[in-house]
Amino acid sequence: MDIRIELTKNPKVKPTDESKLGFGGVFTDHMFLMNYTEGKGWHDPRIVPYGPIPMDPSCMVFHYAQEIFEGMKAYRTQDDTIQLFRPQENFKRLNNSCERMVIPKLDEDFLLEALKKLVEVEKDWVPHQKDTSLYIRPFIIASDAVLGVHPAKTYIYAVILSPSGPYYKGGLNPVKIYVETKYVRAVRGGMGMVKTGGNYAASLIAQEEASREGYSQVLWLDGVERKYVEEVGAMNVFFVIGDEIVTPALTGSILPGITRKSVVEMLKEWGYNVNERRLSVEELEAAAASGQLKEAFGTGTAAVISPIGELKCNGKVTVINNNEIGPISQKLYDHLTGIQWGRLPDTHGWIVKCC
Amino acid sequence: MDIRIELTKNPKVKPTDESKLGFGGVFTDHMFLMNYTEGKGWHDPRIVPYGPIPMDPSCMVFHYAQEIFEGMKAYRTQDDTIQLFRPQENFKRLNNSCERMVIPKLDEDFLLEALKKLVEVEKDWVPHQKDTSLYIRPFIIASDAVLGVHPAKTYIYAVILSPSGPYYKGGLNPVKIYVETKYVRAVRGGMGMVKTGGNYAASLIAQEEASREGYSQVLWLDGVERKYVEEVGAMNVFFVIGDEIVTPALTGSILPGITRKSVVEMLKEWGYNVNERRLSVEELEAAAASGQLKEAFGTGTAAVISPIGELKCNGKVTVINNNEIGPISQKLYDHLTGIQWGRLPDTHGWIVKCC
Ligand SMILES: Cc1ncc(COP(=O)(O)O)c(C=O)c1O
Ligand SMILES: Cc1ncc(COP(=O)(O)O)c(C=O)c1O
Repeated sequence: MDIRIELTKNPKVKPTDESKLGFGGVFTDHMFLMNYTEGKGWHDPRIVPYGPIPMDPSCMVFHYAQEIFEGMKAYRTQDDTIQLFRPQENFKRLNNSCERMVIPKLDEDFLLEALKKLVEVEKDWVPHQKDTSLYIRPFIIASDAVLGVHPAKTYIYAVILSPSGPYYKGGLNPVKIYVETKYVRAVRGGMGMVKTGGNYAASLIAQEEASREGYSQVLWLDGVERKYVEEVGAMNVFFVIGDEIVTPALTGSILPGITRKSVVEMLKEWGYNVNERRLSVEELEAAAASGQLKEAFGTGTAAVISPIGELKCNGKVTVINNNEIGPISQKLYDHLTGIQWGRLPDTHGWIVKCC
Repeated sequence: MDIRIELTKNPKVKPTDESKLGFGGVFTDHMFLMNYTEGKGWHDPRIVPYGPIPMDPSCMVFHYAQEIFEGMKAYRTQDDTIQLFRPQENFKRLNNSCERMVIPKLDEDFLLEALKKLVEVEKDWVPHQKDTSLYIRPFIIASDAVLGVHPAKTYIYAVILSPSGPYYKGGLNPVKIYVETKYVRAVRGGMGMVKTGGNYAASLIAQEEASREGYSQVLWLDGVERKYVEEVGAMNVFFVIGDEIVTPALTGSILPGITRKSVVEMLKEWGYNVNERRLSVEELEAAAASGQLKEAFGTGTAAVISPIGELKCNGKVTVINNNEIGPISQKLYDHLTGIQWGRLPDTHGWIVKCC
């Protein structure tokens, strides 16, 4: 498919002070759009000026949340190359999300080609300062203007771009996490393993209540027994217990993070004893009590590695590693960000150059 | 608050053949809109020509499904009054949905006043033929143009109207229901008890697979033990077992239907032994085997009462009441539709006249 390009006649002023960049509030001049119509398939791929999409008020996405998304970044290296980190994995996950949410799948190679073209058009929007990046948000919404509960016959695939500042303004810093015992995000048989709006909608109230208590995110437990650790807000989670590194297994209610996958692969390469298995809060608390819980950290595109300094569960506070960044967290952070921003060689073939 | 009214200059042609009316595909000339902005509250209530709403592609509703809705109907009586059925219950449930989804609540009295005004403006759109109605869809969407996962600071409340045909084209007719054992719709601690898009998004794949096997809807089981009956697609469910009428208790993962509530109240008045309690598939199958499962039916705004003629669970088919409409289903259907369309006196104070 040929990608039609219509350049803006009114380019925006780019953020002049990159040190003030936040997350997800500023968008570039253009976006990528493509439509699906039953019988016709995905068609009319185009790069057009960023702007509002007129939506009929009856559109399915407003009522039944048939919608999915992805999140990744473009990084500017010191020699001014723009590069992506494992984007094929994001498009593979997008297609998995399509399958669960009954959305017609897309050609992953074409999506990557289209993304590279869009990033090339917007290359001056990729910020320059350390730890800044261009956040990439592909998403699909059901656009049928009809109120029946069934999969739509028309969809919009869009990619929007947002120049973003460092996740940690003051450098890598341990966070306080609230173990959620009242609300549930997802359950096996549900849709927790895909990136769809409803999972995030379900999480808002818990995040609100936790942040009112001074906790930055919640750690979800499984929906069945409410005993086993699942994931944190927009991150997967790892615990260093004795000489084992544990991350919850992908049992169907957890998002298979691309950072998680990369971390598991790196730790194995480095000879660590990493296991994907069930991990109960009870086991965690026992490990903390006996001094065996040495480190904990979240992994995700936004923060890369997020050391966890404190867990609160049922009123009980567990401080981890004296609320300091642990050696494994630091090493992973340095290596992953090193590869992403091109300061370290890409020995895994994880990097895709854009321009 | 004053409601501003801007009438359309291009009224649409109304459906001429009401016997061809379907569901949710045709919309009236006007819609009601109102905005929320943090600090300012809900403001600018207005009735304006129906048409597309321009949405920034980064709008939260597209990504994190912070959205809720309601569903009710306006009925035309034989003396040409237009009336609503328990609309206060819908607005109460809307506010419950707001609470769970961290959306600012609304003034229920004002919502009813606004709805009556909108229906009055559109009164000629309420169809005339037997069993037709004007379907009413209030909904709220998060409209912040920013990509962070947290409750929005701006929202749109909208009401759209759709003239709708009879749910059963050929009159009341038993349906075949597939008992879902693979997918889960909602779990306690989740958001199954409110009317939010994600619950419906989660259900699409199961509905698709069931309809491929010739079943019209799925019966959901609880997400924890996958043993207890919950609800059907967009209906609550009742079973007549011996001389007891059972409907699943509202344990937190089931939508508290307004038809369900009305049915429970009527059955109690009529002296039936109705119980809201846990009901396992096992108990149902045993009752069927011993000849005690006499009737089953769904309840919801769309179909009012939907007799269930067949259940399929784990490959086993249970035929109920010889696949015929049971006497209790028929009696409830006649009474409820009688009250709704004004053929029977409203002895409960359930009816609100519009114009
Ligand atoms: C629910 C959830 N879990 C985990 C992750 C981490 O995934 P990734 O490493 O691919 O960014 C994310 C963020 O993308 C997420 O939204
Ligand atoms: C999931 C679900 N359960 C039950 C119902 C029935 O509720 P009501 O009787 O209020 O229409 C509906 C439909 O509104 C629904 O969507």
